[in-house]
Amino acid sequence: MNRFSEEVTLEGHIIDSWTLPRAFDTIMDLGGSFDVLEMQVGRAKDEASFARMKVSATSEKKLEEILLALQAHGAEIASREDVAYQPAPADGVLPEDFYSTTHLPTQVRLNGHWVEVKSTEMDLAIVVSPAYNEARMVPAGEVVAGELVAVGHDGIRILPPQRSRSREVFSFMGSNVSSEHPKRLVIEAIAQQLHEVRARGGRVLVVAGPAIVHSGAGPILAKLIREGYVQAVFGGNAIATHDVESQLYGTSLGVSLQDGLAVPGGHRNHMAAINTIRRAGSLQKAVESGLLQSGVMYECIKNNVDLVLAGSVRDDGPMPDVITDTTKAQVKMRNALHGVELVLMIATMLHSIATGNMLKASTKVVAVDINPAVVTKLADRGTFQALGLVTDAELFLRELSNAVEAGPKPAVPEEA
Amino acid sequence: MNRFSEEVTLEGHIIDSWTLPRAFDTIMDLGGSFDVLEMQVGRAKDEASFARMKVSATSEKKLEEILLALQAHGAEIASREDVAYQPAPADGVLPEDFYSTTHLPTQVRLNGHWVEVKSTEMDLAIVVSPAYNEARMVPAGEVVAGELVAVGHDGIRILPPQRSRSREVFSFMGSNVSSEHPKRLVIEAIAQQLHEVRARGGRVLVVAGPAIVHSGAGPILAKLIREGYVQAVFGGNAIATHDVESQLYGTSLGVSLQDGLAVPGGHRNHMAAINTIRRAGSLQKAVESGLLQSGVMYECIKNNVDLVLAGSVRDDGPMPDVITDTTKAQVKMRNALHGVELVLMIATMLHSIATGNMLKASTKVVAVDINPAVVTKLADRGTFQALGLVTDAELFLRELSNAVEAGPKPAVPEEA
Amino acid sequence: MNRFSEEVTLEGHIIDSWTLPRAFDTIMDLGGSFDVLEMQVGRAKDEASFARMKVSATSEKKLEEILLALQAHGAEIASREDVAYQPAPADGVLPEDFYSTTHLPTQVRLNGHWVEVKSTEMDLAIVVSPAYNEARMVPAGEVVAGELVAVGHDGIRILPPQRSRSREVFSFMGSNVSSEHPKRLVIEAIAQQLHEVRARGGRVLVVAGPAIVHSGAGPILAKLIREGYVQAVFGGNAIATHDVESQLYGTSLGVSLQDGLAVPGGHRNHMAAINTIRRAGSLQKAVESGLLQSGVMYECIKNNVDLVLAGSVRDDGPMPDVITDTTKAQVKMRNALHGVELVLMIATMLHSIATGNMLKASTKVVAVDINPAVVTKLADRGTFQALGLVTDAELFLRELSNAVEAGPKPAVPEEA
Amino acid sequence: MNRFSEEVTLEGHIIDSWTLPRAFDTIMDLGGSFDVLEMQVGRAKDEASFARMKVSATSEKKLEEILLALQAHGAEIASREDVAYQPAPADGVLPEDFYSTTHLPTQVRLNGHWVEVKSTEMDLAIVVSPAYNEARMVPAGEVVAGELVAVGHDGIRILPPQRSRSREVFSFMGSNVSSEHPKRLVIEAIAQQLHEVRARGGRVLVVAGPAIVHSGAGPILAKLIREGYVQAVFGGNAIATHDVESQLYGTSLGVSLQDGLAVPGGHRNHMAAINTIRRAGSLQKAVESGLLQSGVMYECIKNNVDLVLAGSVRDDGPMPDVITDTTKAQVKMRNALHGVELVLMIATMLHSIATGNMLKASTKVVAVDINPAVVTKLADRGTFQALGLVTDAELFLRELSNAVEAGPKPAVPEEA
Repeated sequence: MNRFSEEVTLEGHIIDSWTLPRAFDTIMDLGGSFDVLEMQVGRAKDEASFARMKVSATSEKKLEEILLALQAHGAEIASREDVAYQPAPADGVLPEDFYSTTHLPTQVRLNGHWVEVKSTEMDLAIVVSPAYNEARMVPAGEVVAGELVAVGHDGIRILPPQRSRSREVFSFMGSNVSSEHPKRLVIEAIAQQLHEVRARGGRVLVVAGPAIVHSGAGPILAKLIREGYVQAVFGGNAIATHDVESQLYGTSLGVSLQDGLAVPGGHRNHMAAINTIRRAGSLQKAVESGLLQSGVMYECIKNNVDLVLAGSVRDDGPMPDVITDTTKAQVKMRNALHGVELVLMIATMLHSIATGNMLKASTKVVAVDINPAVVTKLADRGTFQALGLVTDAELFLRELSNAVEAGPKPAVPEEA
Repeated sequence: MNRFSEEVTLEGHIIDSWTLPRAFDTIMDLGGSFDVLEMQVGRAKDEASFARMKVSATSEKKLEEILLALQAHGAEIASREDVAYQPAPADGVLPEDFYSTTHLPTQVRLNGHWVEVKSTEMDLAIVVSPAYNEARMVPAGEVVAGELVAVGHDGIRILPPQRSRSREVFSFMGSNVSSEHPKRLVIEAIAQQLHEVRARGGRVLVVAGPAIVHSGAGPILAKLIREGYVQAVFGGNAIATHDVESQLYGTSLGVSLQDGLAVPGGHRNHMAAINTIRRAGSLQKAVESGLLQSGVMYECIKNNVDLVLAGSVRDDGPMPDVITDTTKAQVKMRNALHGVELVLMIATMLHSIATGNMLKASTKVVAVDINPAVVTKLADRGTFQALGLVTDAELFLRELSNAVEAGPKPAVPEEA
Repeated sequence: MNRFSEEVTLEGHIIDSWTLPRAFDTIMDLGGSFDVLEMQVGRAKDEASFARMKVSATSEKKLEEILLALQAHGAEIASREDVAYQPAPADGVLPEDFYSTTHLPTQVRLNGHWVEVKSTEMDLAIVVSPAYNEARMVPAGEVVAGELVAVGHDGIRILPPQRSRSREVFSFMGSNVSSEHPKRLVIEAIAQQLHEVRARGGRVLVVAGPAIVHSGAGPILAKLIREGYVQAVFGGNAIATHDVESQLYGTSLGVSLQDGLAVPGGHRNHMAAINTIRRAGSLQKAVESGLLQSGVMYECIKNNVDLVLAGSVRDDGPMPDVITDTTKAQVKMRNALHGVELVLMIATMLHSIATGNMLKASTKVVAVDINPAVVTKLADRGTFQALGLVTDAELFLRELSNAVEAGPKPAVPEEA
Repeated sequence: MNRFSEEVTLEGHIIDSWTLPRAFDTIMDLGGSFDVLEMQVGRAKDEASFARMKVSATSEKKLEEILLALQAHGAEIASREDVAYQPAPADGVLPEDFYSTTHLPTQVRLNGHWVEVKSTEMDLAIVVSPAYNEARMVPAGEVVAGELVAVGHDGIRILPPQRSRSREVFSFMGSNVSSEHPKRLVIEAIAQQLHEVRARGGRVLVVAGPAIVHSGAGPILAKLIREGYVQAVFGGNAIATHDVESQLYGTSLGVSLQDGLAVPGGHRNHMAAINTIRRAGSLQKAVESGLLQSGVMYECIKNNVDLVLAGSVRDDGPMPDVITDTTKAQVKMRNALHGVELVLMIATMLHSIATGNMLKASTKVVAVDINPAVVTKLADRGTFQALGLVTDAELFLRELSNAVEAGPKPAVPEEA
């Protein structure tokens, strides 16, 4: 018998955003049962729906599990309580029962009121300030002893993504654009986004892998930066090194970008590029002294783009601008993410996953890689805002640049 | 003790084409030993080398194995005999000890003279005509009872590929052009080949997969055909069906090529396309009656391109022009291959492997697929004439078309 | 204004099988609107739900499109009519507006009654016999002139898949089991299925690629056949050839299965294997004469397994048992599929897709391949019965065999 | 005219290790020419060969390029000079013309004598001590101002790899073992290596990716460590976190390792695992306090395995034992590499590439990944000591463990 029960409510576009069926699934998958007590279905597109139901289980523990899982679908438990919290026992250590966040908008109930939790990001803790009715998400490592950390799951609710009704590029969402689908159309839509974000002074982030330079597409990315389509660039030691090597020696990993052939003795060029910048002191100084006069790094520096080069254990050198402490690099990346509306992740799994971890669900993401497994990993965000393109980074950038040059589309009245 | 021995000679660019080291490897790998009796190394680029050596093994059988393997490197056994042959015991059945061919130029010794074997292709039998001093390679299934089939390995020699010294596109040979290398340069070189072959009235074959149409690149291939860059097209039921569907309904597998979205009820379009052509009788008749007015199939028919559609067990329908008997399809493909200098294999593994099986080693091959495993399989021909491109078929065709439009490069004096 | 409207009903587990939200999506995606007129939500697990709604659109054509799409979700149009039909104009040619089937159970309304359509398979036509109140699905190519073919979409309804509630192996459904998930558990569950199907005298089909033999796993598959776990095997010329080669010469494509090294002269072994069977007349005769005494082919013949070898254009030889006409091969495959409950597709894309095309939605499918793209293609059946395993075929078969040997699990009371 | 020339010599197994043909290739590819002045070919297996030739080019610069490239093949320039060197201008900055190392054994000529350069590793600088006749390779970042760094390429020679003649597992070298080849044989050979290395007290390193734990193979790796087959483990935050999560909660990323299903609320388990260890202070302390009682981390600590956890920018947490500064992590990895004879790289690209960068050419490497592109990248070391296995990590470890348990093979007289 399912003797233990609780009443929960769901509200919003819970049918057409698939919230309700997911909730039903969850209850039954976890061995519970439910009775729908009340149900109002929005009759049309812009009407919300509402469901109230009694959820039952065979034990208190089972019921807790189910409620916890329903919470992730946006369910609100009828018996409303304030969020519980405990002080962090030490710097960087959380109370045992800490609540771990999702990348969805989240609210906590403080003093009887629902309060928005700031700085949305996955797998963080929530630090609350009951006195100020404030709450924010904080990486575990940055929590200070004594700060009040949300625990359990009462008084916490998340707002699941609601599917947009208008047809746009991200309505391809939910499944990757495989190598067999027409990419031209998608690329044109991304170009259109670049125009729109630039026009309204918004921010675009490119997470850039070294293959961009290695495949000869560096000048294309440099041009997009120079023309103001990119406000932040994340990468690693490799793209910086390849880029400088290509500018100083015309090679990438010793292979000529003019004719694709290995240059004799060219294997040392990337080490020489690193040494040159180390001698100069930094990329910034190399640009200032006229040593570095073009390329992706040059354009980032000249155009005040937020450039974050995060180190990794496979780096040679590294370049002096590379942040070798990964925790510090994360802090700098988080800061540069403020206001970013669109992220292009191109041919780099490590830095793309790192970036993806820090994004809230509502940020638009385009992940481009020739490896379908990478694209799946990056684009599988459980949201309607990620678009995966299984394609060639070089040819993608070439086509994107062409599409950007063709200019923005004239505004059309939105689907009357 | 290695009591059994034989003298063999190797001649030609045996050092810089890596024939000699391969031969040494082979002998030692198979447990034999060798004494170099004579060795003349070509002093420079255009001088051939010559090696004579005694090969020894512990048994007659081992020695036979080694000689057999050396033969594949072009070694000639000093004690020259005529090729042996036996009559085929029945139609399509070979004598037990039949010689199985490689895709390299091959000669047999008949009446004391070396005779070129015609119709070079891998895994075939050699049918000899001693009376006429002739020999040709024949598929096992086509050998007629009583025809004289070469057996054993005496009196047979093959001419291993010799590496070209001039720098050209196919000097990228031997390794794939991965997704990380600059493809623009390679694509320009292929475009140049298309110009040159067309200028001299040569033949280019495109082996075309359905993803070409599905990804929206059909019109690009159609244009290349219309402009005379393609003389033969091999494919299957799928590309024909997708192509006709795209022309009649604007969709490919029910997905609109205009906006990339699924068309309601569109899943039946490919069956309707097949039905329409079945009703017309054939693609040819559909073109003649004005039913089919554009597309890849249309251009093939209008421009007298050799079109071979080979059926497969996964086909729906199929289209009436599809050859459902795979043996008959092979015959038609072989016929269409005469004079082909360059083969572009784009996004189809089945038909590309089938084609590759029929090519002699000297035919140039470009294999394009987004899956590295497919490219490796297609481009790994043991020759210096295959080039594998791990990239996106749609974007590849788009860039190739742009490069072709840019026109041929002016002739330059070779290697100034 | 959406002036054109129609009333439709949906019934069954339409919420937890996600039928209703999919229907809402569809209406809005196609630019229509809806009013929910009546809605009864099943209160618990075993209660069906019911929805009645008015669907509206701006034109008759738009409304038709929407209704057509809703039909695929199982919607029934309130104004019930009999199915319409027209005679086929010629052999193998359908009336223009023919209905193209899905792989889901389908009914047509004949003389006011709903009649089950037999032989469920995707992309076929429905031939009706109003006099006998019968209907069956028929491949377009097999329709005879004058047979009555269903047209339009009135009086046709399909029964969408309803998600099973019990937890079983196929509850991993809907997403692939990637290389990062524990495969041991899934493999044990498949072994359990093999035990259960054998115990009840059911039928299991293995679609087998040549890599099974090439990787040394041939003896494992042979053992499963010998022990009665397999009732049908589909493959091509390659697996038959590799298998015979491995039995006669101990090699696969010339590579020794004992030590993994290339055997000198071994490249001719596969041609010799084919020639040997051609001389014997057939695999059957080679088994009878004692020429072939073990292996996958041998066990198929000895154990009366339904063996279908379907030819392809890339085949060498081929083996005399290979059906070179792909249309005839399809007919033989269809016949062998009767009663098959479980299909294991192992390391062969061509034959697996061909088989998948012929399966009804309720047949359980396990697709095993090391290439994630292949697994996605095979396992993406829009049903809850397909399971994709991105893994190594050899090691998969080895583990499966171990799990089978461990014996069936004792029956447990369901969901204690 | 090629007026500029120099005499060079090559010595050793230069024909069967393909050194000579590679040298010829190089000269001609770079537009030079050569005259073979003297050539002695080793007559048999154990005799070295010798070649002396005059290399010519059209300019001094061209000739320099050719000589530089020949040096990489082991060529020695006849006019022997001591190595040149210059002081490092600043900490971590090299003189402009610094020599960048390969991963092959290298010698420098100091005071007229050839001196072995210590600590072989790719892309490093050579610091010389003429007073002590010593030289060692040093990462650029660790060079101190004033240290004497080798520049140019005179007086430096490398010893190219010579192919082993005996047949062993690594004679599969040079090409990957694809998913289609029998892996059982290779796995048995690796097991044999593990036995041999353990027997002689050698060192084996496992570079371990999180998928090992995630796929349920953690206990297998733990057992190999416990039984003394592994002396060092490199990994990242993820494998440590997954491992602890699996020991504390029975899940990996919230998925139960018992039944493969997602545990309700399980998404927080990996953060809870990290928090638990942070509270304990370190993995070491968690083992000491009895908090952590099994698993890969536990066995490493209990068995004094050299464990290096190198951080990356995508890490959550991280675990307190993770070295977040990538430069420091590299130092610790280099230290742990001393004496390592065999490296197993399993399902981790980042840490495997990092490790590969630090290995000298003579260390044996087995790279296991299901992605062929990763295996190619890891196994393509230009040596005869790397073996790539395209296969499933979980099933690989399972089979490896079985093969290890089967015991070592009895010693056989080598190559009877």
